[in-house]
Amino acid sequence: MRIVDLIDKKRYGGAHDGAELEALVMGYVRGTVPDYQVAAWLMAVCLVGMTPQETAELTDVMARSGDLLDLSELPYPVDKHSTGGVGDKTSLIVAPLLAACGATVAKMSGRGLGHTGGTIDKLESIPGFQAALARAAFLRQAREVGVVISGQSADLAPADGLLYALRDATATVAALPLIASSVMSKKLAGGAQTIVLDVKLGSGAFMKTLDEARELARAMIDIGQRHGRGIKAVLSSMHQPLGQAVGNALEVQEALACLRGEGPGDLLELCLVLAEQVLEAAGLYTPRQQVIHALESGAALEKFHRWIAAQGGKLTAQGLELAPGRQLLRATAGGYLARLDALLIGQSVKALGGGRDQKSDPLDLGVGVVLHAKLGDEVAAGEPLLTIYHRGGKGLDEALHKLTEAIRVSPERVAPPPLVLELL
Amino acid sequence: MRIVDLIDKKRYGGAHDGAELEALVMGYVRGTVPDYQVAAWLMAVCLVGMTPQETAELTDVMARSGDLLDLSELPYPVDKHSTGGVGDKTSLIVAPLLAACGATVAKMSGRGLGHTGGTIDKLESIPGFQAALARAAFLRQAREVGVVISGQSADLAPADGLLYALRDATATVAALPLIASSVMSKKLAGGAQTIVLDVKLGSGAFMKTLDEARELARAMIDIGQRHGRGIKAVLSSMHQPLGQAVGNALEVQEALACLRGEGPGDLLELCLVLAEQVLEAAGLYTPRQQVIHALESGAALEKFHRWIAAQGGKLTAQGLELAPGRQLLRATAGGYLARLDALLIGQSVKALGGGRDQKSDPLDLGVGVVLHAKLGDEVAAGEPLLTIYHRGGKGLDEALHKLTEAIRVSPERVAPPPLVLELL
Repeated sequence: MRIVDLIDKKRYGGAHDGAELEALVMGYVRGTVPDYQVAAWLMAVCLVGMTPQETAELTDVMARSGDLLDLSELPYPVDKHSTGGVGDKTSLIVAPLLAACGATVAKMSGRGLGHTGGTIDKLESIPGFQAALARAAFLRQAREVGVVISGQSADLAPADGLLYALRDATATVAALPLIASSVMSKKLAGGAQTIVLDVKLGSGAFMKTLDEARELARAMIDIGQRHGRGIKAVLSSMHQPLGQAVGNALEVQEALACLRGEGPGDLLELCLVLAEQVLEAAGLYTPRQQVIHALESGAALEKFHRWIAAQGGKLTAQGLELAPGRQLLRATAGGYLARLDALLIGQSVKALGGGRDQKSDPLDLGVGVVLHAKLGDEVAAGEPLLTIYHRGGKGLDEALHKLTEAIRVSPERVAPPPLVLELL
Repeated sequence: MRIVDLIDKKRYGGAHDGAELEALVMGYVRGTVPDYQVAAWLMAVCLVGMTPQETAELTDVMARSGDLLDLSELPYPVDKHSTGGVGDKTSLIVAPLLAACGATVAKMSGRGLGHTGGTIDKLESIPGFQAALARAAFLRQAREVGVVISGQSADLAPADGLLYALRDATATVAALPLIASSVMSKKLAGGAQTIVLDVKLGSGAFMKTLDEARELARAMIDIGQRHGRGIKAVLSSMHQPLGQAVGNALEVQEALACLRGEGPGDLLELCLVLAEQVLEAAGLYTPRQQVIHALESGAALEKFHRWIAAQGGKLTAQGLELAPGRQLLRATAGGYLARLDALLIGQSVKALGGGRDQKSDPLDLGVGVVLHAKLGDEVAAGEPLLTIYHRGGKGLDEALHKLTEAIRVSPERVAPPPLVLELL
């Protein structure tokens, strides 16, 4: 099998079988297929596409490129994945909530990139929190606490890491089969039997339209089902940020508030929907009242504290360290909030130092934005719309510029887009 | 300018400006742009295309990537390029013919690859012939003899050589703007003011249909015109081989026969058309009778001998060394020759050792095939259709297999396709 013939086949619209995908991907992982051949093939995949069968086979090859975690001894091993958004701290709430309902969440998460945040960065705003866990410690915590979230292990689906780096350098990131196989290869290798996907759409999401989001969700569901996993998807809005807090430490504090029953309604609602979906798919059916009870009784909050403590995190009454600077952005006229652009708000937090362009860039975990009004809310002239947590400098100027652009107050109220658009 | 942004631009159908193409191509030549980025970009070009303006700019960048030959002091510097075929020895005839008509042919030629032959290989079947010439010797011979053909200089359009090697490994060879810019960058750097292109179509050619050939010809003409060159194209048939001889030494002998007025009619016709086209475009208008006179008077033959001698070639009365084995292939039934597939005949000569898959493979210059009948000719059962010049072994078996497949005798005569299809 000559690699150039496989590239040619894809270029002219052919479909690969598993052996061909294995030759390409594992040849790349082992260093026998050069990156330039894989790069040309990736671009052909972007422009020609892949069948569902091919996408599932590709995912399988990538999942088997490294270790496969076996969670089958644990009660109801479930996982949750978000395609990335702004202010999305649901994992911090849903994970202990699911554990409080009897499931096991043994999960690996990523770091933020571009305008989107990452769960591991958020958790690292808690002093002492250890995101790097050896496999034995990871599995022991899953068994003893019911919740563990670590950084992505380099031993799990290493093909994905290699391919992602190449895609990032060759403008081949945005391609449905490559996105779906990248996500799902890690989920399959991670060993969860049941998975819920939060596929976001809107300005702050990778997918801009409902059609795109649905197509991606269906591709990932198809992969999961072909591999015998229970899998559901929630399509949710990312036109405006989720909740009120955007920024790493600020989001952890909001997650804690939510677990205490004091969180914003949209965040709580999405967490409940995600929890219900995965519990049902796992065969651990729980009426909404019981899920709410796990929150209101403090059981989820207790799981959260046990989880964070198990990974070395120290939460004190003073809260987390935040950037000392505060600046309000006020409404210049009265009316209704008609625009609160998630992408620009995510970019403004990145400008403040709370996000990164390269995975190796350092982060300022204490900066961010807290929103005081959401889409559709009535605001008066001069009323504070948001508070910026900053350390001054050029970053603040850039953030102010972007935030001003992100917001529009309109004389007439436009109904905000629904938060949860579809359950698949 | 980030290279990944340029790849992204092409992926989504954007058109590059000259500065962007320069950054990509010259970055690659200088080693600052990695091959995987160029590979992804090449595949995007294959699948998305390029505008005529872009193609001309790309050609310009490639032409300027190395030395530019200045032939402006020489009388009527002209060049001729064939897109490659089987039995195509026209350069060996047209070059001295043009010189005999007052033009200067200072030309660089390629080697054969796959089923197609190359002028330099053919010339090297002449004992002593030197294809590698220093620039001073090349220019001196052009001035003194009016004809010089050397191998491609590594100093001319080096970007093309680098890009071609990458295209070859990444299934990105077949793409109109890349083919056109590859050919024309070398022609522009080679310094000829007037160029005639022989764009072949049919089974033995790269382009299979008249539409494809016309599109490629127009793209190359457009590039030449944008660079102020006189340029014409001839679209010619490559459904069957040109002339009767296929194989390096055999083709040189046929070219000599043609220069002596003893060549096959199709070969002579195409040579006359190519010569007329380029002479007219060069402003050296010569009626056909005068071109024929240059042949019949022996002036072109004399130029040929002076040219070959100037490059060290020794032609003797015994002719060139041919492989000693002879095998006839005879018609199994009477009728009319209805198929004489150029691709399969080219592949059979390659199987005999007369062609190569890799540019570095050695060649057997003495093997080949001589056709005794062409498409449309009447043949009797048992009549010899062709003679194979071989050295036995597995190559002969494979060649016989392919030649048997290449030929069909039909009870009814089908008119052969015209040789010259269009003049552009």
